Amino acid sequence: MTVTTIETGMQAIEKTLRDIVDSDVEVLREASQHIISSGGKRVRPRLALLAYLAAGGEDLATAVPMAAALEMVHTATLVHDDINDHSLTRRGKVTVHARWGNTFALLTGDYLFTKVYELMAPYGTPYNGIMSDACIRLVEGETLQAAAAKAGRMDRETYKTIIAKKTASLFEAGADMGARLAGADDKIIAALTAYAYNLGLTFQIVDDILDIIGDPETMGKPVGADVAQGRGITAAQNGKITPDHADGGVATAVAPADPVQQMMEQLRSSGAVEIARMQAIETADRARAALEILPPSPARDELTNLIELVLNRDK
Amino acid sequence: MTVTTIETGMQAIEKTLRDIVDSDVEVLREASQHIISSGGKRVRPRLALLAYLAAGGEDLATAVPMAAALEMVHTATLVHDDINDHSLTRRGKVTVHARWGNTFALLTGDYLFTKVYELMAPYGTPYNGIMSDACIRLVEGETLQAAAAKAGRMDRETYKTIIAKKTASLFEAGADMGARLAGADDKIIAALTAYAYNLGLTFQIVDDILDIIGDPETMGKPVGADVAQGRGITAAQNGKITPDHADGGVATAVAPADPVQQMMEQLRSSGAVEIARMQAIETADRARAALEILPPSPARDELTNLIELVLNRDK
Repeated sequence: MTVTTIETGMQAIEKTLRDIVDSDVEVLREASQHIISSGGKRVRPRLALLAYLAAGGEDLATAVPMAAALEMVHTATLVHDDINDHSLTRRGKVTVHARWGNTFALLTGDYLFTKVYELMAPYGTPYNGIMSDACIRLVEGETLQAAAAKAGRMDRETYKTIIAKKTASLFEAGADMGARLAGADDKIIAALTAYAYNLGLTFQIVDDILDIIGDPETMGKPVGADVAQGRGITAAQNGKITPDHADGGVATAVAPADPVQQMMEQLRSSGAVEIARMQAIETADRARAALEILPPSPARDELTNLIELVLNRDK
Repeated sequence: MTVTTIETGMQAIEKTLRDIVDSDVEVLREASQHIISSGGKRVRPRLALLAYLAAGGEDLATAVPMAAALEMVHTATLVHDDINDHSLTRRGKVTVHARWGNTFALLTGDYLFTKVYELMAPYGTPYNGIMSDACIRLVEGETLQAAAAKAGRMDRETYKTIIAKKTASLFEAGADMGARLAGADDKIIAALTAYAYNLGLTFQIVDDILDIIGDPETMGKPVGADVAQGRGITAAQNGKITPDHADGGVATAVAPADPVQQMMEQLRSSGAVEIARMQAIETADRARAALEILPPSPARDELTNLIELVLNRDK
């Protein structure tokens, strides 16, 4: 059956995600269904399907497993991240490690990674190369972030490297594969990957802003988690840091009662959020500009809309 | 350059393993090099290369990245296992999580998994399908083991399922891919996978025996770790369990001073080790029988030798 509309494609992705975690090992199946059924914005698969359509692809069914694999990578990393961050809620639900314990959460994350591999195997060499490259950069980005948090040092350059690797790389891979599957030429592939890369940067910057100023109820998770872990947007990025934080030691330099709250307050009043907002608007502009060479189509319009959704979301 | 001898092939695998973990993220590179350079028996890649040669393959270079990927899967799971088991030493060296902490160890394991993916991408669809299937079964086996240990219930059937999934599946995949890369027909592929599956079972049973009766210094890690975690060979498998352990609750039913030492003593005197040894001899016999239909060759002789090495090793 030919799948031509984005909403039908997104439904097929939900079904693919649910159906593929079919292990007869109960805890793997249940923990996987738990995290998958908790929703999420599904921005990565949506982007990949839209890139496929905007590049002239005619049957979304071709791109659905690949797009589902992108979401699966993201889901696997969420499970592992939540272990490392000791997060107790995610998308308004209890995290896998909080419910099943660290051992099973670690294994569930590994299991979800193997399912990425299963979903991608039929695509053959160039696609598996693109996906493996994105996965490598993603893990590198996560690691750089953990290292920066541990060192209590996060400057603007490091922040940019981290969000490019941990977030933009997977967005980029999705657009790259979507465009290739549609048989696009190099110019169209380059335009769509540039769009996706900048959309990924925008997405992550907005995510980090929401960690500081978001409404916990709307977000389904506590705010301030990144600040508590010495990640995301820090006063140091702003350049207007107080003498106490002159070494950029945001994770360790605050002492009294509730250091996270205090840091949040400082970030809110420091102008760091406004600076970050300006950066997000700039990367969004770049994403928009990248779309210009594409022929007009409903999918191109949806890609433009996606920028606004990413930029102006409140969760 | 054509690679024709198994020892040259194994050297190429060492080089591949070392060269591929080339991240510019220091902790990933160092932790990966740490675990890779700590050696190990490399039985999985050796098996895969020998299967390739025994099936008529003429240039081992074709099979080297795949064989290295098998070792990389194994290495990734070791890093994650050591986190879950709180193991402090491995192959006579400090474990990754003991040296770099749980966060970086988790990420290093993930990184090594992405490198499996990178090594395998050039092989295309059928090979990536075989490898992803083996990885799924491996994670399932690890999870069943953790679940059985947690429940304090390990019967003979569960034990067999666990070792088939967590160990034999990867051995089987190596022989399958090796034989296919050599262009073997279905009969030869079936013979080599049957061999490898039974070799994998033998390997794991011997591993579990060594956990009980091995010399810690020779092994480079403490013995009794599996017993302490309620895994591996248990008195319950023997059938000759004492009334105290009638529920098979080996992990929880022992109370006083050093429960692990006491359980080890009980296992040594219960006959469980002898029963396990008999099982290992039986699976080794099956591995040997599977080789009979192969045409005689030096590689076939080496595969036969590998059975003896696996069965009679002391570490």
